[in-house]
Amino acid sequence: MEPSSGSRGAWPAAAAVAAVLPAGGSGERLGGATPKQFCAVQGRPLVSYTVRAMERISWISDIIVVVSPENIETMKSIIEKYGHKRVTIVKGGITRHRSIFNGLKVFTENEFSSHLLQKPEVVIIHDAVRPFVEEDILSKVVMAAKEHGAAGAIRPLVSTVIASAADGCLDHALERARYRASEMPQAFVFDIIYKAYQQCTDYDLDYGTECLHLALKYCKTNAKLVEGTADLWKVTYKRDLYAAESIIKDNLSQEVCVTTDVKEDVAQVGFLLHESLKSQIKVEALSMSLSKNHSHLQDIFSGQCYNFVCINDKKYAIEETQQLVDTLEKSNIPLLYPVVLILVHLDVSEDTSCSIGMEELTSIKKFAREMKKKNILVYGLLIQYQDCLLLQETVNSAAALILALIKDRNPELIGQLLVA
Amino acid sequence: MEPSSGSRGAWPAAAAVAAVLPAGGSGERLGGATPKQFCAVQGRPLVSYTVRAMERISWISDIIVVVSPENIETMKSIIEKYGHKRVTIVKGGITRHRSIFNGLKVFTENEFSSHLLQKPEVVIIHDAVRPFVEEDILSKVVMAAKEHGAAGAIRPLVSTVIASAADGCLDHALERARYRASEMPQAFVFDIIYKAYQQCTDYDLDYGTECLHLALKYCKTNAKLVEGTADLWKVTYKRDLYAAESIIKDNLSQEVCVTTDVKEDVAQVGFLLHESLKSQIKVEALSMSLSKNHSHLQDIFSGQCYNFVCINDKKYAIEETQQLVDTLEKSNIPLLYPVVLILVHLDVSEDTSCSIGMEELTSIKKFAREMKKKNILVYGLLIQYQDCLLLQETVNSAAALILALIKDRNPELIGQLLVA
Repeated sequence: MEPSSGSRGAWPAAAAVAAVLPAGGSGERLGGATPKQFCAVQGRPLVSYTVRAMERISWISDIIVVVSPENIETMKSIIEKYGHKRVTIVKGGITRHRSIFNGLKVFTENEFSSHLLQKPEVVIIHDAVRPFVEEDILSKVVMAAKEHGAAGAIRPLVSTVIASAADGCLDHALERARYRASEMPQAFVFDIIYKAYQQCTDYDLDYGTECLHLALKYCKTNAKLVEGTADLWKVTYKRDLYAAESIIKDNLSQEVCVTTDVKEDVAQVGFLLHESLKSQIKVEALSMSLSKNHSHLQDIFSGQCYNFVCINDKKYAIEETQQLVDTLEKSNIPLLYPVVLILVHLDVSEDTSCSIGMEELTSIKKFAREMKKKNILVYGLLIQYQDCLLLQETVNSAAALILALIKDRNPELIGQLLVA
Repeated sequence: MEPSSGSRGAWPAAAAVAAVLPAGGSGERLGGATPKQFCAVQGRPLVSYTVRAMERISWISDIIVVVSPENIETMKSIIEKYGHKRVTIVKGGITRHRSIFNGLKVFTENEFSSHLLQKPEVVIIHDAVRPFVEEDILSKVVMAAKEHGAAGAIRPLVSTVIASAADGCLDHALERARYRASEMPQAFVFDIIYKAYQQCTDYDLDYGTECLHLALKYCKTNAKLVEGTADLWKVTYKRDLYAAESIIKDNLSQEVCVTTDVKEDVAQVGFLLHESLKSQIKVEALSMSLSKNHSHLQDIFSGQCYNFVCINDKKYAIEETQQLVDTLEKSNIPLLYPVVLILVHLDVSEDTSCSIGMEELTSIKKFAREMKKKNILVYGLLIQYQDCLLLQETVNSAAALILALIKDRNPELIGQLLVA
């Protein structure tokens, strides 16, 4: 996930590293028409998440995405829409191995790219449908590959593996502790994996899937196996897309920035709300007016906060929110992830027979529709209290609603006014 | 899932069948304190879903749930709370095999149960953390076990399986097509698996996990392998809980029952809303008053509908909804799944400066809080229009909100009034 971006961890010093992402699969196991790498998660195709996971690592110089011919235009538009850098799109072959081989050829042959890319010392191979790969495991496999020639992430087996006999009955079960699931990422000294692909048979290219196997068979390179974490899993079935969506929502809901712009007499409610939120989510506070806090705001953006609560005692203060929206847009944050913006109206009027006017609802809806185009999800929240005894209860209810809106990020509910 | 319940499919005629569900795992791979079989999905522990999947199959006579000693009380309260029948709780051992063996002993030894259960011809063994098992695969493995002595569900491997050498490097990769993942359910002729457990070594009991292997080793029974569907997967990691939650929500959102009780002049809006919903979800309509349709309502409940939209031109018509709520409660439907109930108020008043009063909001909230105790999630929806040109747009917006509420089933947003 974004928050741990950058290249602060250990990195494979001085090795030129590139990454090849095979993204040519047809996604038949998903049971849908759209190949899984192009399925939308929080509105953005899965492959864009994986590209982003590579792109944010400064020591990866080139990212080669290999797609089937019919998806080249789709992939181009994804790169453009989400502003991905250092990406070269390559036409895939009819099998996984042929696609990866094509991806490697951009460093050696002119026909695959408008200009020959600089050949890396080490190349990472990673599936486009494993979006949660972290820098730590990438640097581990790259460094192991530098030493051993090849390396790959492994995981314990979740199920026992069995061999069946010709009659469809059990022949034998493998001893689970002796075997591992081979996962991605893998990394190779470029010359080793390239030579393996040059020498391997058509049978290997058509029916094989395991790059580590090719390096062993054709270059006598025994890959180093590196224990990976559970988040390396491959999006394979529809349920995996559900899981990916939930994980991303979860990651986006770790922090909220609360801006308060209220008169003294209602500041107490803002304070209580802040306290109630703090017990459940990391809260960044901006208590003064936005204009004086521009640099602080920039800090929060660079810290990858995707949720904003603007507390005001004016009605929804749409004008006052505009500066925040402008800063958000400049930051490019809503480009990659939908940002949640909750306009909280603190109403402490004495009028007990008060009501919500239709024109109020209409103006929030209109603003929300405009913001939706910028990938900002706007919701309204009214905190109204006359009775001091119920204040804490009202504030807790408001905090629960804010958290629910942040966790759900439901685009259908934008522009609605909730009442705490 | 519930909708395909009952024993309409082919079933293993005349064989007495019982099921043993090992549920003693510690869930360490999930990274949480609660073992995964007790984690709540839509408010209900996962193990209850798996018990329900067995319970709804009429030809399974006894369901034995094996839990670790510290969870016996928890399991008892789950059985009681969700009204599960034909379930016997058994104290597990320190390993999976020892737990399963204990589960089998309730049919042969007096000490494990207050009364000796009738020994089945065939016993199903199924993980408590595979809640989506269908009758079809259960009857297949039972019938195959009757013929072959043992049978188990298998799935294609998702990852290549590799063997590592002592130095942590690749030794060899298995040819993926020759191997399968061994999944659950499995079924055995009772005497075969019981004999296998009686004869097997302490090493097997402590370090083995695969029942098919024991049947082969000790009874020379080559289990029949049966291809299962993707929904047999095991909830192992946190992401699997996310996936389970989404699948269950998805299954609950397949159908909506719309009741309409309006005057002639607003009936058109009800009709348009119905049409708009129909294009996106299966709609059961109840156009007359509920009292005259009691038997129809019963039909809908037996068809397992979990979503209700009550359209009224009175304000939220809470009294009118009471009969529906009573029928729902009697049906026991909200016992297993949260039911969504959306109160739609059609407002065609000429008053363009209209507003929503606080007392209105308070009454919906209060009603929703009461209903929440019955596991019914109540939301309000106002459809207001003066402008006939915008009618279709308003209706489409209402349909989108209804679908969003049904799909999300968000308990934090109950009692809120949305505006189309």
